[in-house]
Amino acid sequence: MRYSHLFGKTRKTAPHDADSANARLLVQGGFVDQTMAGVYSWLPLGLRVLRKVENIVREEMNAIGGQELLLPALQPKENWQKTGRWDKVDVLFKLKSQTGKEYALGPTHEEIITPLVGAFVQSYKDLPVALFQIQTKFRDELRAKSGVLRGREFGMKDLYSFHRNVEELNAYYPTVMRAYNEIFTRCGLDIRVTEASGGTFTKKRSHEFHVLTEAGEDRLVLCSSCSFAENEEIAKVAIKDPCPQCGGKLLGLKGIEAGNIFDLGTFFSDAFDLAFTDAEGARRRVVMGCYGLGTTRLVGALVEANYDERGIRWPKSVAPYDAHLVSLAGKKGTAVADAAEQLTRELEARGVEVLWDDRPEVSAGEKFADADLIGIPLRLVISEKTLAKESVEWKQRTADETHLEPLTAVAEKTVSWLNR
Amino acid sequence: MRYSHLFGKTRKTAPHDADSANARLLVQGGFVDQTMAGVYSWLPLGLRVLRKVENIVREEMNAIGGQELLLPALQPKENWQKTGRWDKVDVLFKLKSQTGKEYALGPTHEEIITPLVGAFVQSYKDLPVALFQIQTKFRDELRAKSGVLRGREFGMKDLYSFHRNVEELNAYYPTVMRAYNEIFTRCGLDIRVTEASGGTFTKKRSHEFHVLTEAGEDRLVLCSSCSFAENEEIAKVAIKDPCPQCGGKLLGLKGIEAGNIFDLGTFFSDAFDLAFTDAEGARRRVVMGCYGLGTTRLVGALVEANYDERGIRWPKSVAPYDAHLVSLAGKKGTAVADAAEQLTRELEARGVEVLWDDRPEVSAGEKFADADLIGIPLRLVISEKTLAKESVEWKQRTADETHLEPLTAVAEKTVSWLNR
Repeated sequence: MRYSHLFGKTRKTAPHDADSANARLLVQGGFVDQTMAGVYSWLPLGLRVLRKVENIVREEMNAIGGQELLLPALQPKENWQKTGRWDKVDVLFKLKSQTGKEYALGPTHEEIITPLVGAFVQSYKDLPVALFQIQTKFRDELRAKSGVLRGREFGMKDLYSFHRNVEELNAYYPTVMRAYNEIFTRCGLDIRVTEASGGTFTKKRSHEFHVLTEAGEDRLVLCSSCSFAENEEIAKVAIKDPCPQCGGKLLGLKGIEAGNIFDLGTFFSDAFDLAFTDAEGARRRVVMGCYGLGTTRLVGALVEANYDERGIRWPKSVAPYDAHLVSLAGKKGTAVADAAEQLTRELEARGVEVLWDDRPEVSAGEKFADADLIGIPLRLVISEKTLAKESVEWKQRTADETHLEPLTAVAEKTVSWLNR
Repeated sequence: MRYSHLFGKTRKTAPHDADSANARLLVQGGFVDQTMAGVYSWLPLGLRVLRKVENIVREEMNAIGGQELLLPALQPKENWQKTGRWDKVDVLFKLKSQTGKEYALGPTHEEIITPLVGAFVQSYKDLPVALFQIQTKFRDELRAKSGVLRGREFGMKDLYSFHRNVEELNAYYPTVMRAYNEIFTRCGLDIRVTEASGGTFTKKRSHEFHVLTEAGEDRLVLCSSCSFAENEEIAKVAIKDPCPQCGGKLLGLKGIEAGNIFDLGTFFSDAFDLAFTDAEGARRRVVMGCYGLGTTRLVGALVEANYDERGIRWPKSVAPYDAHLVSLAGKKGTAVADAAEQLTRELEARGVEVLWDDRPEVSAGEKFADADLIGIPLRLVISEKTLAKESVEWKQRTADETHLEPLTAVAEKTVSWLNR
């Protein structure tokens, strides 16, 4: 892709209301545009990152037997009344049609998927089943903040699992935990699993997956030695206390909740009479689990965990492009532009995604600043100077040093570096 | 995929309110579930069809230089007031946040994309640009009907193009027409381009792409000899008149509007002051075109154009799976089940998508009826009878005859048939 053609260039100034690194860098880098408070448009560069995140999530959900479907955003009021949540969920957007019918704009989909599963599940032979979607959610937040971390419209993967009994759910639960760990690892994120309240659904605790960063909204109590980690809202220990698990030193840190998993018990199957006939012919309630993961929030968390004073530093797996090729003084028809076009073709033929900054009128300094801001993991520079040595300048976004690579070998080296 | 594991099986009875073939067959086949009037959940089988349609659309939009982005469903009231459409568009869903802010739930995105483009386009060098999204739209229809053809929530591809002058738009317009023709051809649909009103935007006419079927809402006046085709709403000729273009015989037919393309002129760039500096330094208004294509509606149109009394007959390019393998009397561990599992692996290794009806307790008649209802283009049957002849029964959904293919050759033959 030629940068001169790309819609959504870098911007010199940060939004005046940017309260976090992701709000500033995603806008300045040309990844998103704030349509209004808490609502973003995803520009071509940002959509590429989001799609990569979604695909990683999708692959790991498929790997644990999840079946993908797509549920509606418009949800009937009656379903929310059945669970008592029409008046209880304070962030529920409500609207009315011209015929007088009332809808909720879905912040979550238990009210839709529970009766849907009821239409297809009759016998114990139909269970267990795990269903997920990657879909747009809506929350009427009193105060949207932190860029794409807490918005009024956002992307989310929600998985729901349906089981014959608690033991079956308990056995599936760690499978999802492992899938979540795999997702975050593939995204290049260090996360910490913390225990939190089970909310209105269960007396048991839920689990949250936190990216540790100052931009996080959640305050956590973590042990510096063992896996003990609790959300401050449920923690019964103080930071000055020893770790209740190992006696080690506790830390108070902030985290972004990138995912959560809940044991829903029979809260929703009670409300919708979701039951099955067991092997003995008796009717029994289905036991449910739900597993959320904010896809647009994850993009924000990735920025919060990967930036420096010059811009974003995307991990390879989610970068909008693999390589950022900068051609200097390369007007059309000159040797530099020709070599850059040739290298772009060579890289693309090997499956490398290239963003080629081909702008003839822009200075080297500005191009380098844009490359740092956009944060693609590898920067390659072709200039008259490098061409004289039949080479290309190689620089990783996370390193300061540059060196020359032979023009004939750089495509091969790029592929092997990307696969490392 | 084993049919026994698939969520969303066939249903014996049609929904009581099914008013069209797609409403009946998509529900009975397990492709969608009606959440409420005009709002559908897409089950795994249906989502596979929808994704294939979306990918065809995406590829053809990329091929004409369209850049994909993702705009929000929540849109600020102020933008709709600027174009005067807040009170004019009668199908506009409106809602209010707890802080009192009013939003439209987007039925279309000119009110978002026009100011967005204004933030990035300054000079004539930044134009032309073409941007599209594949996204969920909302319309407060007085009466939702015809299954997924006219719903309150639906998927749509919307492309917007931005030009320096009318001539540039006029040159791009037929490029999009060709891309649309390519999309419909790849989906296996015969369409007819008809002229229609330009609506409030332009005195010129717009173009609609119609799938000719009795399920269509639009009445068309078509020439049986030449390309003359007009929506009845603008037609100045009567059916009994000769064709104004060639003197041929006119027909009155019904069609589903699967796509439309509009010359927007400067309606929206006037409202949002979207302008650029031309080569002489003068400020000029951007000229816009918009090009819609209903992705979920296209799935419905595909059914309306491809069904018989037994069920759907998906074209190869958009079928949920390539082959429907039926194993008969194959209890786990028997030769039939083993052979079916082996064939599934062999087909999948060659890139063939297989839905394997592995249910041991279901009769041959029921499995065949389900295969016809679901409508995958190729049915393969393995039974003790075919195995005795070391073969597989081959039947195309659109043909009545069956014949035996050698077990060792069927995978190769399937691949070549699919690529035909």
